[in-house]
Amino acid sequence: MVFDNRSRLRYLLSVSETNWLAEVRFGADGLVPVVAQESRSGDVLMLAFANREALERTAATGRAHYYSRSRAALWRKGETSGHVQRVTEMRIDCDQDAVWIKVEQAGPGACHTGRRSCFYRKVEAGEGAARLSFVDADRLFDPAKIYGTHT
Amino acid sequence: MVFDNRSRLRYLLSVSETNWLAEVRFGADGLVPVVAQESRSGDVLMLAFANREALERTAATGRAHYYSRSRAALWRKGETSGHVQRVTEMRIDCDQDAVWIKVEQAGPGACHTGRRSCFYRKVEAGEGAARLSFVDADRLFDPAKIYGTHT
Repeated sequence: MVFDNRSRLRYLLSVSETNWLAEVRFGADGLVPVVAQESRSGDVLMLAFANREALERTAATGRAHYYSRSRAALWRKGETSGHVQRVTEMRIDCDQDAVWIKVEQAGPGACHTGRRSCFYRKVEAGEGAARLSFVDADRLFDPAKIYGTHT
Repeated sequence: MVFDNRSRLRYLLSVSETNWLAEVRFGADGLVPVVAQESRSGDVLMLAFANREALERTAATGRAHYYSRSRAALWRKGETSGHVQRVTEMRIDCDQDAVWIKVEQAGPGACHTGRRSCFYRKVEAGEGAARLSFVDADRLFDPAKIYGTHT
């Protein structure tokens, strides 16, 4: 189709082997949101943020790296818990300001509260106002044992 | 398990029917990131942002609403294109600062470039530096016809 001849190219013309990271549009805080999806189940495990270094290391090592806003530091997922994420696919969106990774989650879960996914509460929009309910919310590990503090 | 008796409750004690939105931790810009996943395929279609009103309307109407940062306005997905998103499930994460919705996408796609998903480029981390390649990148509609301008 006339409006889509570029999609037949295997590689983008404007983004070379070396400059794809230079084209990422980080926010004012130097970060982009990253969605981590479990390859096997298709469930979203977590949403975190990455700076340039985190994206670079994720691509280079095949292990998910983020930027911890609370600790203001590079965060190699699993560095404390051992629950590393092996990245099986990494995509960037149309605006180059969001990243989607598919991961194989090591250990029982991704969430610091002990759950498999951070998204263990559902908004139920029934009659009247919406409310929250737990879903897939069993704790699979004790965060106090892993992180040394009850979260 | 001792550390998880709360997960047996159907509803959260601290978040009532009416205040779940009050507990959402919006960023300094008043927004939270929202991951929209296609129910059927499990693919992530887009990552956008929502303000309080957008979350409220999404929960109340069952149709995805976002906040357009470029237009600085509430954005009812599909208001121009007709490509609305019917929300089949809505979840909030542990920190209450990210939202995951599963949607049925009306029309050919979610992306303003004409693709089904905004994530149509893959980071290939081969030997040496990573590069991008197209994946699932066919344009399913002509954005010029839908939006009146070529994007």
